[in-house]
Amino acid sequence: MKYSFKNDYSEGCHPSILKALNDTNLVQQDGYGEDEYSAEAKRLIKKKFNCPPDASVHLVSGGTQANLLVISAALRPYQSVISAETGHINTHEAGAIEAGGHKINSEKTTDGKLTPEICQKALDFNSNFPHMVKPKMVYISNSTELGTHYNLNELEDLYDFCSSNGLYLFMDGARLAQGLTAESNDLKPEELSKLVDAFYVGGTKNGALLGEAIVINNLEIQKDFEFYMKQRGALLAKGRLIGIQFNELMKKDLYFELGRTANRKAMKIKNALKQKGCTFLTDSDTNQIFPILPNDWIDQLLKEFGFYVWEKTDKKHSAVRLITSWATPDEAVEKLIEQIEKL
Amino acid sequence: MKYSFKNDYSEGCHPSILKALNDTNLVQQDGYGEDEYSAEAKRLIKKKFNCPPDASVHLVSGGTQANLLVISAALRPYQSVISAETGHINTHEAGAIEAGGHKINSEKTTDGKLTPEICQKALDFNSNFPHMVKPKMVYISNSTELGTHYNLNELEDLYDFCSSNGLYLFMDGARLAQGLTAESNDLKPEELSKLVDAFYVGGTKNGALLGEAIVINNLEIQKDFEFYMKQRGALLAKGRLIGIQFNELMKKDLYFELGRTANRKAMKIKNALKQKGCTFLTDSDTNQIFPILPNDWIDQLLKEFGFYVWEKTDKKHSAVRLITSWATPDEAVEKLIEQIEKL
Amino acid sequence: MKYSFKNDYSEGCHPSILKALNDTNLVQQDGYGEDEYSAEAKRLIKKKFNCPPDASVHLVSGGTQANLLVISAALRPYQSVISAETGHINTHEAGAIEAGGHKINSEKTTDGKLTPEICQKALDFNSNFPHMVKPKMVYISNSTELGTHYNLNELEDLYDFCSSNGLYLFMDGARLAQGLTAESNDLKPEELSKLVDAFYVGGTKNGALLGEAIVINNLEIQKDFEFYMKQRGALLAKGRLIGIQFNELMKKDLYFELGRTANRKAMKIKNALKQKGCTFLTDSDTNQIFPILPNDWIDQLLKEFGFYVWEKTDKKHSAVRLITSWATPDEAVEKLIEQIEKL
Amino acid sequence: MKYSFKNDYSEGCHPSILKALNDTNLVQQDGYGEDEYSAEAKRLIKKKFNCPPDASVHLVSGGTQANLLVISAALRPYQSVISAETGHINTHEAGAIEAGGHKINSEKTTDGKLTPEICQKALDFNSNFPHMVKPKMVYISNSTELGTHYNLNELEDLYDFCSSNGLYLFMDGARLAQGLTAESNDLKPEELSKLVDAFYVGGTKNGALLGEAIVINNLEIQKDFEFYMKQRGALLAKGRLIGIQFNELMKKDLYFELGRTANRKAMKIKNALKQKGCTFLTDSDTNQIFPILPNDWIDQLLKEFGFYVWEKTDKKHSAVRLITSWATPDEAVEKLIEQIEKL
Repeated sequence: MKYSFKNDYSEGCHPSILKALNDTNLVQQDGYGEDEYSAEAKRLIKKKFNCPPDASVHLVSGGTQANLLVISAALRPYQSVISAETGHINTHEAGAIEAGGHKINSEKTTDGKLTPEICQKALDFNSNFPHMVKPKMVYISNSTELGTHYNLNELEDLYDFCSSNGLYLFMDGARLAQGLTAESNDLKPEELSKLVDAFYVGGTKNGALLGEAIVINNLEIQKDFEFYMKQRGALLAKGRLIGIQFNELMKKDLYFELGRTANRKAMKIKNALKQKGCTFLTDSDTNQIFPILPNDWIDQLLKEFGFYVWEKTDKKHSAVRLITSWATPDEAVEKLIEQIEKL
Repeated sequence: MKYSFKNDYSEGCHPSILKALNDTNLVQQDGYGEDEYSAEAKRLIKKKFNCPPDASVHLVSGGTQANLLVISAALRPYQSVISAETGHINTHEAGAIEAGGHKINSEKTTDGKLTPEICQKALDFNSNFPHMVKPKMVYISNSTELGTHYNLNELEDLYDFCSSNGLYLFMDGARLAQGLTAESNDLKPEELSKLVDAFYVGGTKNGALLGEAIVINNLEIQKDFEFYMKQRGALLAKGRLIGIQFNELMKKDLYFELGRTANRKAMKIKNALKQKGCTFLTDSDTNQIFPILPNDWIDQLLKEFGFYVWEKTDKKHSAVRLITSWATPDEAVEKLIEQIEKL
Repeated sequence: MKYSFKNDYSEGCHPSILKALNDTNLVQQDGYGEDEYSAEAKRLIKKKFNCPPDASVHLVSGGTQANLLVISAALRPYQSVISAETGHINTHEAGAIEAGGHKINSEKTTDGKLTPEICQKALDFNSNFPHMVKPKMVYISNSTELGTHYNLNELEDLYDFCSSNGLYLFMDGARLAQGLTAESNDLKPEELSKLVDAFYVGGTKNGALLGEAIVINNLEIQKDFEFYMKQRGALLAKGRLIGIQFNELMKKDLYFELGRTANRKAMKIKNALKQKGCTFLTDSDTNQIFPILPNDWIDQLLKEFGFYVWEKTDKKHSAVRLITSWATPDEAVEKLIEQIEKL
Repeated sequence: MKYSFKNDYSEGCHPSILKALNDTNLVQQDGYGEDEYSAEAKRLIKKKFNCPPDASVHLVSGGTQANLLVISAALRPYQSVISAETGHINTHEAGAIEAGGHKINSEKTTDGKLTPEICQKALDFNSNFPHMVKPKMVYISNSTELGTHYNLNELEDLYDFCSSNGLYLFMDGARLAQGLTAESNDLKPEELSKLVDAFYVGGTKNGALLGEAIVINNLEIQKDFEFYMKQRGALLAKGRLIGIQFNELMKKDLYFELGRTANRKAMKIKNALKQKGCTFLTDSDTNQIFPILPNDWIDQLLKEFGFYVWEKTDKKHSAVRLITSWATPDEAVEKLIEQIEKL
């Protein structure tokens, strides 16, 4: 079978997590997230990300769910959310945000990242006028859907902009570990909470079987959040399942180690491609890279590896997406590099 | 710590399931339910429940999610769903169905079960008149929230009624194993599919870490169901997690064995209570029983066991809910019985 | 053609209103409710009902629209509204409130009126627990769908109850004029605003072509209300149409005169029925009465008059609904009375 | 006071319509659109637009309402609607379509008009893949928000494209009269019905006090449409109000006469501007024109006339929007032309 670089959720979970699930399996615990493991996981997350004491943490099963819950809880029906055109909520969530009643003000970007200038355009267009929606939130992904990430000053600028315009800033962290451990990143986990109103810590794409930990720093968004979760089917009866996993990811540094590992593997492949003279759709140093390749190279590589062709860039070239994860075997990376060198 | 009879999801999963998760952990598989384990689980479920060849099976993480997905997919905005007043969708899902836009026509029952006569009342009230909602589905739970279950002729009558009135019949099977293995039950798994338009096979409350398998027999409800799932955040990236579990539950007879075990433990307790002369809120022979006890008995039992007081029945008595599961240790049952006998 | 006592909206508008529409027809005005007539109408309404200076008034085209707007603006997605089972929102709005995402906690009443005791039942059932909805508003109609009305002390009690339980009180005033001018009523228009968080002043059923004036006294519900209106299609381009009409109804006492007239006609019929020994479903002294008649009387009256048979009361009797309005000709009333006397 | 060219709904209704309202005022009729005037209006509309015999017509109060009703009735929750970026539903309806749960796939155009090529882009992006929405409808306005209109062959091409891609074509006709009576238009009213699945005939902006007549040719969209209307608050108790007006507009040729009149006045102004050497944002020959003017000209004209500045085109110029209607007095047009000539 061909080895797949299609995504970072092709395997089960990290062995330490599996061990923890085995060890705790028959301990009786309260349901619906009221278990001790979830409580401890929440405590660890708040510590790791230096959250304010009154921040709340909520464990849910996936990214689309996390996004629709936070956005629904934050916005009134006529309010909208500003997103990069490439943002996950705008492209790959089957209209989940609109199904919750909210318009997405989608804005073009070059690299999947929003800036104050780009967000200002959405505000200019939707002035405070009751015939139009009223933007109330800015949604960003870190790392983004194009593999890029936000550095400290970029996030500071954006948060300043949001604060002075009465907008919430919400960070989709499906690949937060990968963003925060990118080589060129200078944003520290402990700086994050003071720069966003809410964010989530992605587990599914970084070693867990499932699970995203939503962190809500802004009290306005917190109110009765469990009610939203239950109403949307997001409150797991055996909430312990996610609690145990985040416990394991957070109790030492496993969460960031796995992100770093995933990135390192991608960077090896990136370097091999660079040496072949390839260019890239975006300048990513996280675990998603988008090299632009001649179409015949793509055909050849597809014989032995699985990956997605992302978009045509000209008649003879396309960008492809290659993803690595904590679970990608070194030999798969080496074999791919070997093939690249032979092209 | 006090042993809890509060619910049937206080532990992790059945050891066989845990073993399967361990064994398959690092095998690479496609995401979002396109893995081989899910495919096999779906095949086994269709076989076990004798579903028509074009039935579809969809694996989701919880019961509220299963209910809101099936009901949303089946109904147009002005259509409503008839439910027992005690139905899970009407009481304990935080308004999930209404949040999806649909009215619940709730009807009083004595034992949590709907009959054609009761459903007819909802139809009589909401005649086909554009100022009122239009009932289009009947929702039942089996076993019910009050521990009762539907026998074959009861389900046949209800399905006949639904068919001749253009109503879909949908069965919430969060505790389907417990209903179908109740001592007085005569409805066979292989008879179910021809008597309901859709149902789900509950895993969470019967041995799985999480997971409900929605079965849709009626093609009208099937259309583009994955789109709904994704839109509502119900499509797990690592869908294999649920696939592997249902595989294990279904490949032999584990699913029903666990249900039978849970029921047997409850019946032991029921008998002990009967011998003390207790009466019961409903005549249940599944894993949920509702004895009516003097309030001082309740106080005494609560010192050593966890359970919910369900409702006051008179000044001196209340009904309590006692739940057992596949995981309830025999010694916990024996200790409870011992205490009951001492009362 | 048979004269119809089916409803109070069978004719166009009161001649004074029609005259005002004629007189102002070609005056240029701003659109979407920014016209001078609407501004004046709002001022007059606030004066007539003694609203607090910061109350807002919003003119919309119908009652269902008024209800869904106020309820949507007031509630968060997991919050619900308590209503009498017979409440308009619960029976005759085709699921409009649920389509907006909210559960109605419907409660049985004898006369269509809610009391603190009845509302407490909804609170008791839905304790503050994230698996259930959270009641946040009480909805009442005045006069009710059964012709009854709220007296001062009843409304005071209900508002006290709401205030001390963190619930909004919202009054559907589709037939407010009729309620406030009922003979046995002691609630004065100028007392209303301090006893409800929001209400609306019904025009359609009391002399206007269309139009309900929503009054929001509670600032929490006011925020950005125009955005909701536009989003729900309730902001008329020629908002003047409603403004002009309420201007006319409010500038002197026309609004209440028309209500009084409607009631008086109904009372004449009621007295004739009483003298024939009839009983009534409810004790109404507004323009809707519900006499219980032998079925053969009903058949005879239906030959010459239009009205709805409301419900069977026993094998030989049914309650019917007779409605009068400002436009009911005296001779129609007399002819009906004549027929009643002959029965 | 300054004469306003801001919109085409600054006055009441056409005198013939007012007369009809006066003449019929006290005739008793059934409510909720079951009156004889509405029946006759529907018959006339079907005749005028040569609709198939089983087409349905529904009278509602405004354009946003018409759009949200048709789109909600046509689409399932995961389906989306393709619109020009400038489309009314995408810009000036406060998120009404998203509040109904549907994503708008907005596409850039040069003149507010969609073509098969533009629509294909939305289909290419949202392939039939359950992580993305599924486009199911194309929404166009005729005349458009930029004053342009669709000629016969353009509409044929678009309808062919829609048909072969399983998409509904829906035409927003808020300014249908103006589009169909434009000098360069060659699309006849009697050709329209076979080229769209649904459309609406705008009354509010063409002589009525309020009212849009939705025509549904495609039976798939018709089903239970009254239920949607009631649920969204769009079923007027005195439906006669709209029926009478469309009766008057349709019984002879008043509807198109008024559109022609509005256009003619705009063209006079356009010619005056052309003679001053002005260019225009779009090539409109309907009642909305968008001349690009030096900013100091704009300032001067604003002293005597009301109109909106639409967008900056460069540092020294902006496009403005000038709208005429059936009610615009000739002398206002002449005075404006006089001022233009003096610039």
